[in-house]
Amino acid sequence: MTTTGGVRTFTAKGQATRQRIIEAASRLILEQGLEAATLEDIQASAHVSASQLYHYFSDKSELLMAVVDHQTEAVLGAHRPILERLDSFETLEEWRDMVVTMLEAQNCVGGCPLGSLASGLAESDALARRALADSFEQWQTLLRDGIASMQRRGELQTDVDAGQLALAVLAGVQGGLLLSQTRRDSSSVRIAIDASIAYLRTLRP
Amino acid sequence: MTTTGGVRTFTAKGQATRQRIIEAASRLILEQGLEAATLEDIQASAHVSASQLYHYFSDKSELLMAVVDHQTEAVLGAHRPILERLDSFETLEEWRDMVVTMLEAQNCVGGCPLGSLASGLAESDALARRALADSFEQWQTLLRDGIASMQRRGELQTDVDAGQLALAVLAGVQGGLLLSQTRRDSSSVRIAIDASIAYLRTLRP
Repeated sequence: MTTTGGVRTFTAKGQATRQRIIEAASRLILEQGLEAATLEDIQASAHVSASQLYHYFSDKSELLMAVVDHQTEAVLGAHRPILERLDSFETLEEWRDMVVTMLEAQNCVGGCPLGSLASGLAESDALARRALADSFEQWQTLLRDGIASMQRRGELQTDVDAGQLALAVLAGVQGGLLLSQTRRDSSSVRIAIDASIAYLRTLRP
Repeated sequence: MTTTGGVRTFTAKGQATRQRIIEAASRLILEQGLEAATLEDIQASAHVSASQLYHYFSDKSELLMAVVDHQTEAVLGAHRPILERLDSFETLEEWRDMVVTMLEAQNCVGGCPLGSLASGLAESDALARRALADSFEQWQTLLRDGIASMQRRGELQTDVDAGQLALAVLAGVQGGLLLSQTRRDSSSVRIAIDASIAYLRTLRP
């Protein structure tokens, strides 16, 4: 490890180990919850010692911030390709199906990785809270740009606020994922997104 | 403490102490998050020793179940009076204002007590997860009955599924509260509920 301008840099092998720890932590937190996933579990899952873990992360808070960044990239990385080409109701339904399929693939376990981290860290880690607020902002912006494209294509009225619609759609997805996670039934998030789509259909010109 | 048919019973003074512990735990979990609120913090806040705490709760899981029950009563107790008389758009807007006012009174800290517990416990405590699924079910039923009253009064079309509409409204509230908690800004939950109300307005006969 060398330090350049206050930023720690690692060798390629070190980077790979650091990434393995982040991925193990992300998976365990999703599968077991923030409280149950201990540093000991994360070490065991990533096959590293405590001293190795502390070589890469000075404390649990620093590891959690890396998990927030990792899950932001993972979640937005999954949604971005489809939301970037959103300009029709068909694509909106395709996106709904993707959300439901992803949740079913994990048997509804973990809900939304970003929503779960936000709920678990909002009151204990102000830095993580702000980072997650930024993640939601990026997600909302992707939805807003897609809704604005639907407006430009004449699929939606142009006098409605695309940003507010995007926020309402995102809230429905987040709440729907939480209800589906709690009920172990993907129908909640499907019904929530379907209601958003049905509302948008009433806003056709 | 005496045991009657496997159920522990306490004296009136014992009941009051037990209740004080539950309320301290509920408040600390809401304000600091599930992970940060340690048993030591809860003991200090409730002014009890560790042995007193273990006299009332055999382990943390039993205390958490009592917190789930307590917060279910607190949240549904706040929503029930207004949702039980829901039969018009005016009352729906009154309910939205209550949700926003309650969140602002806590400076957006903690979000929804039930949503936060569900997100934090769903993967680590199957009993708590099922209890919270039941809490959401009760909340959805209150909303569904109110929406059905609106249908009977001719405020809404009768051919739409009141249960699915209630689920979509609840999802919007939960997601909106989470976004508001993360952003420390009550406008997210207001916009989310406003979108639900606007959608319901399109379903007038």
